[in-house]
Amino acid sequence: MVLKVYGMVMSPAVLKVIACLKEKELDYEFVVVDFQAGELKKQPFLSLNPFGKMPAFQDGDLTLFESRAITQYIAHTYVDRGSQLVPRDHKEMAIMSVWMEVEAHEFDAAANKLNYEVNVKPMFGMVTDDAAAAKHEEALAKVLDVYEKRLQVSKCLAGDCFTLVDLHHTPLIHYLMASKFKALFEARPHVDAWVRYILTRPAWLKVQELMKQNSIPAS
Amino acid sequence: MVLKVYGMVMSPAVLKVIACLKEKELDYEFVVVDFQAGELKKQPFLSLNPFGKMPAFQDGDLTLFESRAITQYIAHTYVDRGSQLVPRDHKEMAIMSVWMEVEAHEFDAAANKLNYEVNVKPMFGMVTDDAAAAKHEEALAKVLDVYEKRLQVSKCLAGDCFTLVDLHHTPLIHYLMASKFKALFEARPHVDAWVRYILTRPAWLKVQELMKQNSIPAS
Repeated sequence: MVLKVYGMVMSPAVLKVIACLKEKELDYEFVVVDFQAGELKKQPFLSLNPFGKMPAFQDGDLTLFESRAITQYIAHTYVDRGSQLVPRDHKEMAIMSVWMEVEAHEFDAAANKLNYEVNVKPMFGMVTDDAAAAKHEEALAKVLDVYEKRLQVSKCLAGDCFTLVDLHHTPLIHYLMASKFKALFEARPHVDAWVRYILTRPAWLKVQELMKQNSIPAS
Repeated sequence: MVLKVYGMVMSPAVLKVIACLKEKELDYEFVVVDFQAGELKKQPFLSLNPFGKMPAFQDGDLTLFESRAITQYIAHTYVDRGSQLVPRDHKEMAIMSVWMEVEAHEFDAAANKLNYEVNVKPMFGMVTDDAAAAKHEEALAKVLDVYEKRLQVSKCLAGDCFTLVDLHHTPLIHYLMASKFKALFEARPHVDAWVRYILTRPAWLKVQELMKQNSIPAS
């Protein structure tokens, strides 16, 4: 049974899935879907994800999309492999779910737009909108203020152990740490320590090697 | 042990949690947090949710926020009560996770903004921005095109059984069905059948009674 990931390595959503597979020490086949050639919005990709967004994922006859659904499937299905990415206790699982939603609705909402302005646009010859970047920076700072308090009481966001919640943050933080906005993270001591921890996990270092091979600017 | 829900009954996010409790036939105490009086952004509410958004939820000494995390906790913790809202098979659970993410990132992104323009703004004496509403209508139509195909192969979004995925859609669909945008749902036969099914579940009829008692416009 071969696990397959469809997308491009540069995408933060695809990187979430690859980081998860590396944490679980699972082999996989990577199938490039060239979004610049419009392949996301055409067959055969649309039969994997009708919304035409990367990544898609296959485990045998099971096809999934939406990065956070894929990582949850991997973490629960291959629970005895590699790192333990989800708690076994159901109350701890509920706390993890809360912070997983926070990542999706609070952190990602700000960090993804900021990354688009400062990293993605220049990569494609577009000009950063400084006013938009400042707005997203302000929103991200408010989220990180909450994180700073949270990380005073636990090493990671869902508790003392690294979980999918921290993993989901890693790709965008990696990209933003290569911009002037790294100051947002460094200015908050507990956030800073957490960032150093998640960016130096062995699995993420392996992902960084992959990113370099794919000529993606790395921090 | 008393379950507590904090918020206002009119909020779609709060309604997700109440609908879930009604499906599970669980009693709860409702604590009104008056957002117009600024109570969301003040203590004691901020100690329940540092992001100052409703709902918050308590089950004994466990405090949660983020509506979709709360419903998942309720569905998994009280698995033997009322309706079975989550599959037991792990592949079916993965499929449910995919459509739960779709609801959050595709459906809600369009439907929430459309509802804000056409229902919330007039309720607070603001004027609907017709151009914005048209943009959100177009986005929602694209999502519903995917749903129409999906609902040709299964009665509900995650499969033939009603799950949290369908439940998470119910509040916003309820509100939009009271607007001219109900045509978006009625024009797609499988979506239309699904909408009729989820809006007439006994648990949702009980929620509607609550909404009427709280003087919320009902469809």
